[in-house]
Amino acid sequence: MPVGAALWRNLRAHQVYGANTDVGKTIVSTVLCNAVHRQKQQAAFLKPVSTGALDDADDQHLKRFGAGTLTKCLYQFDDPVSPHLAAKDKVIPRDDDLLASIHKTLSGWARSDIDFALVETAGGVHSPGPNGNSQADLYRPLRLPIVLVADSRLGGISSSISAYESLLLRGYDVQSVLLFRDDYYQNHEYLRDYFNGKSIPLVSLPTPPSRPAQLDADAQLRDEEAMFTYYQKSAQESDILRLLEEMKVKNTERIERLEEMGDRARDLIWYPFTQHQGMQAKDITVIDSAHDDYFQTFGSNSSKNTQSELQPTFDGSASWWTQGLGHGNPDLSLSAAYAAGRYGHVMFAGAVHEPALSLASRLLETIGNPRFTKVFYTDNGSTGMEVAVKMGLRASCDRYGWDASQEQIGILGLKGSYHGDTIGVMDCSEPSTYNQKVEWYRGRGHWFDFPLVKMVGGSWKVEIPRELQADLGEDVDFASLGSVFDLEQRIESTSAQRYKDYIHRTIEDLVQRQGMKFGALIMEPVILGAGGMLFCDPLFQRCLADVVREHPELFSGNATAPKESPSWSGLPIIFDEVFTGLYRLGRSTSASFLGVSPDVAVNAKLLTGGLIPLCTTMASEEIFNAFSSPEKSDALLHGHSYTAHAVGCTVAVDSLKTMAQLESDGSWDGFRDDWRGSSVVPSEASTPDVWSVWSQGLLQDLSCAESVESVFAIGTVLSISLRDAEGGGYTSNAAKGLQTKLSIGGDKFNVHSRVLGNVLYLMSSVTSKSESLQEMEKLLRSALL
Amino acid sequence: MPVGAALWRNLRAHQVYGANTDVGKTIVSTVLCNAVHRQKQQAAFLKPVSTGALDDADDQHLKRFGAGTLTKCLYQFDDPVSPHLAAKDKVIPRDDDLLASIHKTLSGWARSDIDFALVETAGGVHSPGPNGNSQADLYRPLRLPIVLVADSRLGGISSSISAYESLLLRGYDVQSVLLFRDDYYQNHEYLRDYFNGKSIPLVSLPTPPSRPAQLDADAQLRDEEAMFTYYQKSAQESDILRLLEEMKVKNTERIERLEEMGDRARDLIWYPFTQHQGMQAKDITVIDSAHDDYFQTFGSNSSKNTQSELQPTFDGSASWWTQGLGHGNPDLSLSAAYAAGRYGHVMFAGAVHEPALSLASRLLETIGNPRFTKVFYTDNGSTGMEVAVKMGLRASCDRYGWDASQEQIGILGLKGSYHGDTIGVMDCSEPSTYNQKVEWYRGRGHWFDFPLVKMVGGSWKVEIPRELQADLGEDVDFASLGSVFDLEQRIESTSAQRYKDYIHRTIEDLVQRQGMKFGALIMEPVILGAGGMLFCDPLFQRCLADVVREHPELFSGNATAPKESPSWSGLPIIFDEVFTGLYRLGRSTSASFLGVSPDVAVNAKLLTGGLIPLCTTMASEEIFNAFSSPEKSDALLHGHSYTAHAVGCTVAVDSLKTMAQLESDGSWDGFRDDWRGSSVVPSEASTPDVWSVWSQGLLQDLSCAESVESVFAIGTVLSISLRDAEGGGYTSNAAKGLQTKLSIGGDKFNVHSRVLGNVLYLMSSVTSKSESLQEMEKLLRSALL
Repeated sequence: MPVGAALWRNLRAHQVYGANTDVGKTIVSTVLCNAVHRQKQQAAFLKPVSTGALDDADDQHLKRFGAGTLTKCLYQFDDPVSPHLAAKDKVIPRDDDLLASIHKTLSGWARSDIDFALVETAGGVHSPGPNGNSQADLYRPLRLPIVLVADSRLGGISSSISAYESLLLRGYDVQSVLLFRDDYYQNHEYLRDYFNGKSIPLVSLPTPPSRPAQLDADAQLRDEEAMFTYYQKSAQESDILRLLEEMKVKNTERIERLEEMGDRARDLIWYPFTQHQGMQAKDITVIDSAHDDYFQTFGSNSSKNTQSELQPTFDGSASWWTQGLGHGNPDLSLSAAYAAGRYGHVMFAGAVHEPALSLASRLLETIGNPRFTKVFYTDNGSTGMEVAVKMGLRASCDRYGWDASQEQIGILGLKGSYHGDTIGVMDCSEPSTYNQKVEWYRGRGHWFDFPLVKMVGGSWKVEIPRELQADLGEDVDFASLGSVFDLEQRIESTSAQRYKDYIHRTIEDLVQRQGMKFGALIMEPVILGAGGMLFCDPLFQRCLADVVREHPELFSGNATAPKESPSWSGLPIIFDEVFTGLYRLGRSTSASFLGVSPDVAVNAKLLTGGLIPLCTTMASEEIFNAFSSPEKSDALLHGHSYTAHAVGCTVAVDSLKTMAQLESDGSWDGFRDDWRGSSVVPSEASTPDVWSVWSQGLLQDLSCAESVESVFAIGTVLSISLRDAEGGGYTSNAAKGLQTKLSIGGDKFNVHSRVLGNVLYLMSSVTSKSESLQEMEKLLRSALL
Repeated sequence: MPVGAALWRNLRAHQVYGANTDVGKTIVSTVLCNAVHRQKQQAAFLKPVSTGALDDADDQHLKRFGAGTLTKCLYQFDDPVSPHLAAKDKVIPRDDDLLASIHKTLSGWARSDIDFALVETAGGVHSPGPNGNSQADLYRPLRLPIVLVADSRLGGISSSISAYESLLLRGYDVQSVLLFRDDYYQNHEYLRDYFNGKSIPLVSLPTPPSRPAQLDADAQLRDEEAMFTYYQKSAQESDILRLLEEMKVKNTERIERLEEMGDRARDLIWYPFTQHQGMQAKDITVIDSAHDDYFQTFGSNSSKNTQSELQPTFDGSASWWTQGLGHGNPDLSLSAAYAAGRYGHVMFAGAVHEPALSLASRLLETIGNPRFTKVFYTDNGSTGMEVAVKMGLRASCDRYGWDASQEQIGILGLKGSYHGDTIGVMDCSEPSTYNQKVEWYRGRGHWFDFPLVKMVGGSWKVEIPRELQADLGEDVDFASLGSVFDLEQRIESTSAQRYKDYIHRTIEDLVQRQGMKFGALIMEPVILGAGGMLFCDPLFQRCLADVVREHPELFSGNATAPKESPSWSGLPIIFDEVFTGLYRLGRSTSASFLGVSPDVAVNAKLLTGGLIPLCTTMASEEIFNAFSSPEKSDALLHGHSYTAHAVGCTVAVDSLKTMAQLESDGSWDGFRDDWRGSSVVPSEASTPDVWSVWSQGLLQDLSCAESVESVFAIGTVLSISLRDAEGGGYTSNAAKGLQTKLSIGGDKFNVHSRVLGNVLYLMSSVTSKSESLQEMEKLLRSALL
C-alpha cells in the first residue's frame, strides 16, 4: 500500500543520509537536535533500522547527548553490519510496513508538540535496508528533504558528490550538507563551493573529540564530558543556527508554494483540452511528486488521519495513458541520464547512434510484423500519425496514378476515431467535438459506424448499432471475452459474411457512385480511445481489413490498373497503436488481436515506459519505396529537430526490455489465470490469450450496477459507461459523480481519474501491484454497488 | 582543443576508477596486468596524475610487481592529498593538455606492440583533478571503457553503486567491476547480483596481504615476496582470465558494431528529410558519443596521426539547430535525472507540477513581452506552431465574425517561410520543395517577397529583389550590421515609407479585389531558417507588423466592425522563434531586433539547451480569451500525452538559467567587442547590440572569396552563400564542395555541416570555446580563400 510523502506544517521532518558509513551522521543529528532545543523547540530522532550492539545504538547516543530529544528506533539488529545482513534469519518488516511505521511515527510527532524531526538512515545512501533494497530506493516514497552528511576524510569529496547524485537521481531534494572540518584534506572548502553552486548550504563542524578504543569508567566519564562540551559548543555555532533557520524557511516556503500553485497555474498555464471559463484554482490537482502508481498530491483532502499535507493518489488515467513502468522509476532515470551524458542530443538526419539503431531493431522484433522493415522517428503520436498519413497517401497515389494536388484523396476509417491534434491527422477523423470548431479542420474521408463489445448485466455481447441492424443483424451474446476474439472461428460465421457484404457495398457506393477516392485505411485496433473508449468488435475491423485487401478493384477506379503488389493490396492499412500498443491491452501489439498485419503502424506513449515523448512510425519496404526516386523532393521531407533523440531511444530500449521480461517471466500469470479459469468462462485450451489486470468478478458486479450502462476491461484498461438520461457523448456529465467519489478515495489513497463524457476509465501501469488493484476494486465496488 | 575518444583496434585501453580512495585500484591494475602477461600479451599502465611520495607512487608499484608492464606517470605531485591540493602553487597542466597527453601516450602504445592498457585515476570518481574539476568530468572526452574497483569495506556497497551511477550520468560504459572479497561484509555478493542485473561482470579477488606500517629491510623483503605470491596466484584465477577475455570480446564487438552501424541504419532507419535512393552506408555519419561541441565519429577518416578509431567532429549544424549548452552536459543530465526520479511524467491536463509552473513563469520573464500572459506546452516546433495557428485563426474569426467552416481563412507571411512538417503548418507556407509533393498540402495565404541583408565584397547591404525595385527602390549599403538594425532611425526613412506603402497596397489588393481573408500574420523574425538561411531586412518585418496593426480596416472587410481591442489590432501577430529565439541570434528573443511584441510566440530547440524535445506557445490574454466560453467544445482542444513533461520542463528551467547567466556574466563580451570595435564599424554608442561568435574579419574575407556570393553572421549563426551557375535553391549542389572540404577537416578535428541548397551554414552552441571557433575560422579560410 502506498504511503504519503512526508510533509507537515508544524513538524519539520528530514532524513539524514551519509555520504558513506562512519561519516558522523549521528553526531551531526545530535548537534542539530541540541541546537533545536537551544531555540526552545522540541526535536525528535527516529532510527528506523539500527544495527550493532544496543548500547552503541544511535538512538541511545541521541538519548544521552540530545538534550531531551525524543528518540525512537523501529527495528534493532545486533550485528554491526549492513541491515540486509544483520536482518538475515530474523523477522523483518516488509518495506511497505517499514515506511508505514515511519510515517505513523512522524504523524504522531506532528500531532504532538514536536517541531523538528530527523530520520536517520544506516550506512551510506545505497546501503541496503533489511530486505536488501537500497535505502535510497526504499525510503523514496516518503521523499523527506535530505540532510546529507558529507565525508571529511581522504576521498570524501568524491563519495559526497556521488552520494548527492544518487539522491538526485531518485528525485530527492538535498536541503543541506554538513561535515566535519579537516584542515588537512579541506574537503569542506571544496564541497562548500560545489554545493553553494547548487544553492545548497553547507556547514562544517569542528571535528568531534576522538573516542578511546577501550573505555574504563574514568575514560568513559571523560569521553562523555568531552562530548557534552562538544555538543554545547557546536549547538551555539552561528552557522548551525542559521542553517536551522534556513531549513525552517524552506519547509514554510515549500508549503506556501504548494498552496499557491493552483492559483499561479490558473494565471500562467494554458491547459490542454480544457475550457478555462469557470475553472478555479481548487480544480487543479497539485502534484508534488510521484512514485510507482501514485501521485503525491497536495490539497484540502490532505488531512485523513495523519495531518500530512501530501497524500498518495492513484494515477487512474496512467497520466493520459502513458505510464507503463511507474513514476520515478530509478532504472529509467538512470537510462535517461546515461544517454544524456553520452550524447545529449545528436543530429540524426544522415547520422546514426546506437540507441536509435537498437530501438529500431528491437521494436521491429517486438512488433513482429513480417511486413515491417523501416522505422521513422518523431516526437508524439500526432506527428507519427501525420507521417503515417503521408506514407499512405503517397503509396496509393503512386500506385493508382492520382494527382493529389488536383483531387481530394480521403481516408477510410471508423467513427469515433482520433489520431492526434495536428490539423493533418484531425482531418483523418469525422467531424466531432474535438475538431469541428478548429478553423482549418476539413474531415477528408469516410468513417464506418461499427458494432461494440461490452459487458452488460454480467454477459459479454456484441452490440450492433440500431441503424446497422438491417445490414449486420441483431446483437450477439458471448460466453467470454476470449470467444469474442476467437476470430479464426468467427471469420467463418454468417456475421462475418454480413459484415463483409456491408463494407463492400458501402465502399462501392462511395467510390463508384459518389466519386470518392481513398488513400489509406486507418484504424485504432480494438479500442478507439479518445473517441470514448469504444471497444470495436474485432471481427468488424478484421473484415474491414480483409475487404480492403481482397478487393483492390474497389479503389483503383477504372482509369489505372494497380501495379504489381508484393505486399499491400487495395489500400495501405495504417494502425494507430499509440494508445493500444505495447502491452496497454496486454499484448505487444493490438494488431495481433485482429490477425492483421498492417502496412504502417504508429507507437508512442508506452514506448518510453511513461517517461518522455517519443514516437515511431514503422512501415513496409513497399511503402518506403514509394518515396524512392532520383529527386530529393520526392523523399519524405519530414523531420523534427530532436528526431530520434538519444535519451528517448535509450529509455525506450530499456522499457521494451523490461516489458518483454514481464511478459515472459510470469508476472502477469495471476491476471491470466483469473481470466482463463473464472466461473464465467469455462477454461478453453484454444481461447485466445485475452486478460486484464481488472478481475472478471469486478466486471460482472459493476455491469449489474444500477447506474452502469456497460463495462469492459482488457489489459490494463477498465471502462465504465454510466447511464446518462441525456444520451452520453463527450459533453455528458454522467461520470462526474463517480469521479468525485473516487477522488475522495478510501483510507489508503485517493484516485485521480479522467472521464470521457459518460465514460469513466481507469488504467494501471504494467507493473501495478495486485494490492493496489484490489484496493481500487474495493473503491469501485463501494462507489457503484 | 578537443581530443578524440580513445578506441583502438589492437590496443584495449581502459580507465580504472575507484569507488573510493584506498579501495585497491593499483593492486587490481597489477593483477590485471599480470594476467595479461600470463597470456603472452603486453600490458601498459598509465597514471596521468600521481600524488604522494615518489617511491610510493602507483606506477612504481606496477613497475615492481607488474611482470614487465610498461608504466608511465605524466604528472607527479609529492603531497599525499587530492591532486587539486597537491598541485597548488605548482606548474600544472591544463585539462585539455592532460587529455592530449593521455591520448598521445595511448596512441603511441597502440602503434607499438601494446595489447592492453590501464589508465588509473586518483582517489574516487569525483576526486578533483589538478585544476579542481572532478575527474569523472575531466576525463570524459576520452570516454574510455571503465574498470570500476568497488569498495569491499563497510559502507562499500553504497559507495560502489553511487560511484557507478556518477559514471553513468556522464555516459561512461562501465565494463567490469572488481573488488576484494571480504567474507564478513560480503559486499562482493551483494554487488555481484547488482551488477549482473546490469550485465556487468563482477570479479572478486582475495584480500591482498596486509602491509606492515613500518618496514625494515627484512619486513620489506617479506612484504615483497607476499605481494609477488599474491599476484602470481591471482593472475591465474579463472575469473580474472575470463574477465580479460570478456574485455577483449567487448572491444572487438564495439568496433564491429561501429563498423556495421552504417549498413544496419540504411536497412532499418527511414531517415527524416532524406532521399534514400543511392544512399550508401558510408554516407551515414556514425556517432559513438558526443561531448561539448563535438561528436565522436567513426569512419574512414579516423586514422589521422593517432590510429584511433574515433575522431572529434565539430557539430557544425548544432545538431539541427538544437544545441546550446553542449553535448553530454553533466548538469543537464542531472537535471533530467532528478525530474525523472521525482516525477517520471505526470498528468498535466487539470494538474500542475513545479517544473511546468517554474518554466512558464521563467519563460514569460525571459521573453519579457508585456502582452504575454499564458504558456501552452507541446513537444516540438511544428506542434507548437499548429497551436499558434489555431490560436490566431480563432482570435480573428471571433473578432471579425467569420465562419471558417464556410470560408477559407489564410495566413499572411513571407516567402521562404517554414514552420514545421505537420500538415497544418505546412499550409502556412507557400508552395516549395518542402511541401509541394505532400498530397494534402494546400498553401493557404499570401507570402511577401522581401529585401535581404547580406555582406557582399566586404560590405553590408540590403538587397532588394529585382521584381520589387520599382516599389521598394534600389539596394542600400550599410556601414555595419548594427546600423541595419537601427530601426528607430530607419523607421523614419523613405525606405520605410516605401515598404509600408507597398505592403498596404498589396494587402488591400488581396483582400478587397481578390476577396482573400487573413487570420494571422506569421513570421520567423530576422532569419528564415529552413527556407535557406534568408536574412530578412528587419525594417521590412517591422513595417509589415506596423501596417497590419495600424490598419485593422484592411482585414475586417465591410461586413463586421472590429470589436474593442485592448491588445491586438488588425491580425494576431505570431512569431515563430523556434529557430531564432533563446540566444540563437545572441538575444533572448529575435522579436527584440524588430521592436515588435507579437501576440503569440513559439519557442523550442534551444529551450532545453539541446537535450530533449519541448515546445512552448506563449500568448496574450486576449488571444486566450477567444477560447473562453461556457462550452467545453470552444476550448483549445489540443494536447499531447507528454504535455509539459517534467523532464523537459526541468531541463528547460536550468537551461534558461544558465543562458541568462552567460548573457549577464560577460561570457560573450569578447564577441561583442569584436563587433563593436572592429575596423569595419566605427564604435557607435547608440548602435544596437548586434554581434556574433563569428568574427567580422572572417566575414569580410569570406565575402570577398571568388566562390562566395554573400555571407552573414549573427549570434551563433554563420551563413555562406556559394555562387551557383544554376541559380541556387534547395536542390543546388554548389555548397557540397565546401561541405566535403570541411568534413575532411584539419589536424585538430573534422566538421559535420549541413547545407541548404547553395548555402552552407555553421552554428555554434552558446558555450563554444573561442579556440574551437578560431580553428573553425582557420578551416573556413583555408577552404575558401
